[in-house]
Amino acid sequence: MRVVQYGVGPIGAGIVRLMREKQALEIIGAIDRDPEKAGRDLGELVGAPDAPWGIPVSAEAGPVLGRNADVVIHSTSSILKDVAGQLLECIEAGSCVISTCEELAYPFRKYPELSKRLDAEAKEWGVALVGTGVNPGFVMDKLVLTLATVSQRVDAARALRIVDASRRRLPLQKKIGAGLSLEEFREKVAAGVIKHQGLPESVAMVADGLGLPVEDITESIEPVVAEERVTTEFLTVEPGQAAGVHQIARGLGNGKELVHLELKMYVGAKESCDAIELRGEPDIRLTIPGGTHGDVATAAVVVNCIPAILAAPAGLRTARELPMCFFPPGALP
Amino acid sequence: MRVVQYGVGPIGAGIVRLMREKQALEIIGAIDRDPEKAGRDLGELVGAPDAPWGIPVSAEAGPVLGRNADVVIHSTSSILKDVAGQLLECIEAGSCVISTCEELAYPFRKYPELSKRLDAEAKEWGVALVGTGVNPGFVMDKLVLTLATVSQRVDAARALRIVDASRRRLPLQKKIGAGLSLEEFREKVAAGVIKHQGLPESVAMVADGLGLPVEDITESIEPVVAEERVTTEFLTVEPGQAAGVHQIARGLGNGKELVHLELKMYVGAKESCDAIELRGEPDIRLTIPGGTHGDVATAAVVVNCIPAILAAPAGLRTARELPMCFFPPGALP
Repeated sequence: MRVVQYGVGPIGAGIVRLMREKQALEIIGAIDRDPEKAGRDLGELVGAPDAPWGIPVSAEAGPVLGRNADVVIHSTSSILKDVAGQLLECIEAGSCVISTCEELAYPFRKYPELSKRLDAEAKEWGVALVGTGVNPGFVMDKLVLTLATVSQRVDAARALRIVDASRRRLPLQKKIGAGLSLEEFREKVAAGVIKHQGLPESVAMVADGLGLPVEDITESIEPVVAEERVTTEFLTVEPGQAAGVHQIARGLGNGKELVHLELKMYVGAKESCDAIELRGEPDIRLTIPGGTHGDVATAAVVVNCIPAILAAPAGLRTARELPMCFFPPGALP
Repeated sequence: MRVVQYGVGPIGAGIVRLMREKQALEIIGAIDRDPEKAGRDLGELVGAPDAPWGIPVSAEAGPVLGRNADVVIHSTSSILKDVAGQLLECIEAGSCVISTCEELAYPFRKYPELSKRLDAEAKEWGVALVGTGVNPGFVMDKLVLTLATVSQRVDAARALRIVDASRRRLPLQKKIGAGLSLEEFREKVAAGVIKHQGLPESVAMVADGLGLPVEDITESIEPVVAEERVTTEFLTVEPGQAAGVHQIARGLGNGKELVHLELKMYVGAKESCDAIELRGEPDIRLTIPGGTHGDVATAAVVVNCIPAILAAPAGLRTARELPMCFFPPGALP
């Protein structure tokens, strides 16, 4: 299977290193518009021990997409409207697409017209595309829906994810506002700079998958306030400063909270975990002690999705409908 | 969607009651060879509050299968060779089949020829069939594989399921040997009477899904010995007697234990739980405190599987490849 990597940031680099381990995959090209990356060898850029690979990173998408990859792995931005052109370019090159764009995970409520267009174009070109990752894409949606397989009735769903950002990359520590004063934090939230994307998309996927009549989806972002000094590789957070985000997305319907997704991502979190709770027949809980590692898991979910997207019917797909599993390194094409 | 229930024992009755709650389903018939059941109204037989339904249980399969159901739910026996004729009859009537037959969950190692035949016949008739349930079908295989979606590398997989059989039905309490002397227990194990079916099938599904080179699958059955008196609705277990089974199935390859599935099902179990552990990159654990309820969950898994089997390509399918989810009661056909 021939693959192209579109976007070679920290997440893209992790994806590329993992793809290299799969015998069934041949990386035939990479795209990144950053002039500091373009022209460099992909293996060297991602720090692979067996570099160089003889695969130059290209600043121009067109020629690389013209090589007819089976799948393009796309990881350039979280905001769907910013990347829709890139996605369409991949589709029109006849390639399936797996994107880490959080808003693509379940785009039907926020972008009804664009969703229809992506679906129609993908069908016309006979390819499938999906937005996925660890969250959205797994912990707060796919895993919730999978757990509901043992439910006879589901009245409401909750998920809680607590992530210790201390050992995560600097862009993530910045994105969650670690080290800011509470005033700065609130300003950046208002400016849309501080936010983990994708919770409303997960709420919608869970609601639709469980048949819960969610009419409104609300979202709140508050700071987690540091109670003691926390020092990471990159920065120091003093007591009283923001240590990270506490986000809650709610799916409301019939005057009730039907879906509740809560994310605490901050430096110094002591109780990292993922937890899911379904109320219904029966009530059931699931926990992943320590939680699912963000960056490692995102690369894993994306690469493990390759066989599923190649086998999927053409069109805009979601994690909800794909049979997600592991992609063994020795699997044949 | 038109459904037929084939086998109206305790599990079949639970399935029927749950199917009745789904707007998209129309139960068009039921089959059970037991002369005490044949001729009775299905709703009355399963204790439905809105009985009678005007659906008589039929002792003869042919006429009921001749009504062209979209799906037949089959729950008559755990042993594939005993039910292969029934499954073929359903397939040849042009119906998809979901069976609780444990050995059908992943039959390729034990029944290679029969698996091929079922697959070929299903393809010829344009229908899909699957064996599923809570175990095999979910806790020790599908959920293990789903968790592996976040894995970059998997070296080994373990699952532990502890079930308190105290409040389960009598046939199950008998099947696990509760109340027998240890000698009687071992005799019945040797005679093949005491055994939870399906662990080797789950080992094989996990091994294949994770790409683990399992060459041999071994299975052991030991009694859980009661340490104190346990009284259930149906029987009393004295200290020193068997309280239930402790089964371990192992997938071995390269001189190592690659898959380890352990089931403790006994009356008086205090720590019911399901637990999964994957070793690799990263190590990850998942727990369901209290565990997944056996009978409730089996009915749920089977009924929730109906949309997936109808959407699946024709042939012999497994839980591994089906996108399992919840089947909302108000979902449209």
